[in-house]
Amino acid sequence: MEAVILAAGRGSRLQASSACKPLTPLLGTTLLERNVRLALHAGATRVIIVTGHRHDDIHHWKQRLPLRLRHRVALVHNPKWACTENGYSLAQAAPHLTGDFLLLMADHVYSAELMQTLVACDPDGGAVLAVDRRLGRAGIDPHDATKVRLENGRVKALGKGLQQADAYDTGAFLCSATLIPALASLRETSDTRLSALMQELADQGRLHACDVGDAYWQDVDTSEDLAAARAGLLAGLGKGKAADGPVSRYLNRPCSRWLTRRMADTRLTPNLVSWLVLAVTAVAALLTANASGWPMYLLAGVLIQLASVLDGCDGELARLRMQGSAYGGWLDAILDRYGDAALIAAMTWQALQAGGPSAFWLGIAALAGSFLVSYSAHKSDQVLREGIRIGRDLRMLILALGIALQQPEVALWCLALAMNFTVFMRLLRMRHVL
Amino acid sequence: MEAVILAAGRGSRLQASSACKPLTPLLGTTLLERNVRLALHAGATRVIIVTGHRHDDIHHWKQRLPLRLRHRVALVHNPKWACTENGYSLAQAAPHLTGDFLLLMADHVYSAELMQTLVACDPDGGAVLAVDRRLGRAGIDPHDATKVRLENGRVKALGKGLQQADAYDTGAFLCSATLIPALASLRETSDTRLSALMQELADQGRLHACDVGDAYWQDVDTSEDLAAARAGLLAGLGKGKAADGPVSRYLNRPCSRWLTRRMADTRLTPNLVSWLVLAVTAVAALLTANASGWPMYLLAGVLIQLASVLDGCDGELARLRMQGSAYGGWLDAILDRYGDAALIAAMTWQALQAGGPSAFWLGIAALAGSFLVSYSAHKSDQVLREGIRIGRDLRMLILALGIALQQPEVALWCLALAMNFTVFMRLLRMRHVL
Repeated sequence: MEAVILAAGRGSRLQASSACKPLTPLLGTTLLERNVRLALHAGATRVIIVTGHRHDDIHHWKQRLPLRLRHRVALVHNPKWACTENGYSLAQAAPHLTGDFLLLMADHVYSAELMQTLVACDPDGGAVLAVDRRLGRAGIDPHDATKVRLENGRVKALGKGLQQADAYDTGAFLCSATLIPALASLRETSDTRLSALMQELADQGRLHACDVGDAYWQDVDTSEDLAAARAGLLAGLGKGKAADGPVSRYLNRPCSRWLTRRMADTRLTPNLVSWLVLAVTAVAALLTANASGWPMYLLAGVLIQLASVLDGCDGELARLRMQGSAYGGWLDAILDRYGDAALIAAMTWQALQAGGPSAFWLGIAALAGSFLVSYSAHKSDQVLREGIRIGRDLRMLILALGIALQQPEVALWCLALAMNFTVFMRLLRMRHVL
Repeated sequence: MEAVILAAGRGSRLQASSACKPLTPLLGTTLLERNVRLALHAGATRVIIVTGHRHDDIHHWKQRLPLRLRHRVALVHNPKWACTENGYSLAQAAPHLTGDFLLLMADHVYSAELMQTLVACDPDGGAVLAVDRRLGRAGIDPHDATKVRLENGRVKALGKGLQQADAYDTGAFLCSATLIPALASLRETSDTRLSALMQELADQGRLHACDVGDAYWQDVDTSEDLAAARAGLLAGLGKGKAADGPVSRYLNRPCSRWLTRRMADTRLTPNLVSWLVLAVTAVAALLTANASGWPMYLLAGVLIQLASVLDGCDGELARLRMQGSAYGGWLDAILDRYGDAALIAAMTWQALQAGGPSAFWLGIAALAGSFLVSYSAHKSDQVLREGIRIGRDLRMLILALGIALQQPEVALWCLALAMNFTVFMRLLRMRHVL
């Protein structure tokens, strides 16, 4: 699957926010970059951006992309952007396409869920349009939006002035490769509006509709739309991850989301946040090892919990901006393990001062168990469903409470028993399923 | 792909070794079980065994198979086994087949390499016969063996009495599903020899040849053949693994192969050997932690190195008997990590007695680094090629020398620096490739 992003228009109503509409800043990235990452995340192998107005700005933006993205982005210029419509821009991309393709608008914001729903559809020799049945939804101007009339899962008619509409056009299409020849031969003298091309397809019964349910999207024409898009994406953070444990769900996530919203517009990248988490964890470990007197114990506990909260922000930021990457997830996992080692070692050091040398072996058991739970999860998570799961959120809370309440040995006992028991159960259960 | 194993014949020449030829013991398993595992390992989803002579013995053997294997094995009885040939046995399996299938002989021993070469071929609407061009090879009786004449990659003729032969018939076929209807309608009154059926296919130009190169196989008819098969498979152990480091290749592997040969005929399973390695490692760790005086130090070092050598045996035994499994590899990795933790902790304990408390942090760094090298390898091994690799073999040698020479702190420094540096380099390099 390839992708085309139409980014040739002037976008005059947003010129107060940005001279080049596709490069309008949004949550630490730009409208265009967000859609490029979204398309790649949805499975596109290559993204063709059709430029027009301010082509040079977009060219410079492309040159500054990380190599991993830049290699997959191609710019195609529509030289007649000023006197043609968006269908003609799409026609410029057609000669470069080789198969089915996603078609997105640079000035639309889409959620990852919307994209996921759309790419699961079958264009069936025509095209699929993602439609939103929530007519009258907040944030969408019903007069300015393109509306569609549906019949038996197909689009019958679409347009801004449509009477008796069933849904909004979200501006996201999945098109079959069979459309390419007709697009490539589009004349500038014909009706070059994309909606006209799509109406033609609809007349042939080849434009299917894909209901996006309550997935978020926003057409961004004005600075009010931009503010609405920002708010809508930030609200999407609330969904959390299905894998979250109870500590994460009820304690950490609300706090980390609050922090992520504060970070969203900054230049902090998810990977930088992962390193920041390790730094905070290291300070917490130093304090834990050297603490004496209840204020320091309490502070160490608070810092550990803060690191645990902050540990949610890298992933949230990545999902919010579509900046997630295989490297990011891997880096986070490795740095988290170093953090685990530092904290458990610090706790063991405390226990060694307070109790006897036997705390050394207890600490090693806790450390090995914690590591092995993460190490064995690579494989066991693929095949086992575990009822109760002692994740990092709970481990960190045990450590935070252990030091705050001056009970390092109790915390180490909890970890050593729970973690090694988890590994032992996995060894037993995997025997039957692997 | 499915598989058929012909196991109906009497095998009178081997009756001194075993009443039921397919169940003749070989290297801690049986001829038949080895071929079942081999077929599954090569990608077969199901194995149909055609029985005849001593059907009940094979039925009982099947009931005692591990569930994971038993679910994939079906027995089909050839009631006329005494008065028909092996082609008629194959015909009994035909109604149960649904696609392309491997065809193996219960009384042949094949190497995994041979199977791999064969399943990579395309039966192209007919069949592929694995052939061995090493005429006069030791272990094969040239008068008793089935020979083939080749022309342009196809078999022209096959038979025991063939003049002007080009290669041996190894008794392993990959057959196309198109052969099934003809097989199912085979009459017992016609020539029911498999070689006659294959000759017919050859006459139609539909029997292709697949040269197995120097891959091992053996037709087992006599107790001399059985001894030759045992020796041939044990010799195959010598190949080692491409991923072996220098310590493994020149020091550990020769010793572990010697041990594996000793274990081969016992009932020790690879998984049991993995647990045994952990037990020896635990004893070595106990000794390391409590050693005083050079004889104990030396003994601890020798035990660590012994555990390292033994660590190669589980995999060797699994490859030798085709007993490898996803669970086995996973179990081994997890138990190895516990072993690492025990040894590094013991070394740290020694260093704590000898030096000051700062050895604690050094030990934690060595432990975390060692864990993280294994933890990060899950992903980095898939995409990175590392020039020098400090594997477990080298880590164990450093620990063994460290305790034997009474230099625990030096060993910990080596590990802490080398392991964490390896992780650091991976973090840098993966950024560009992930």
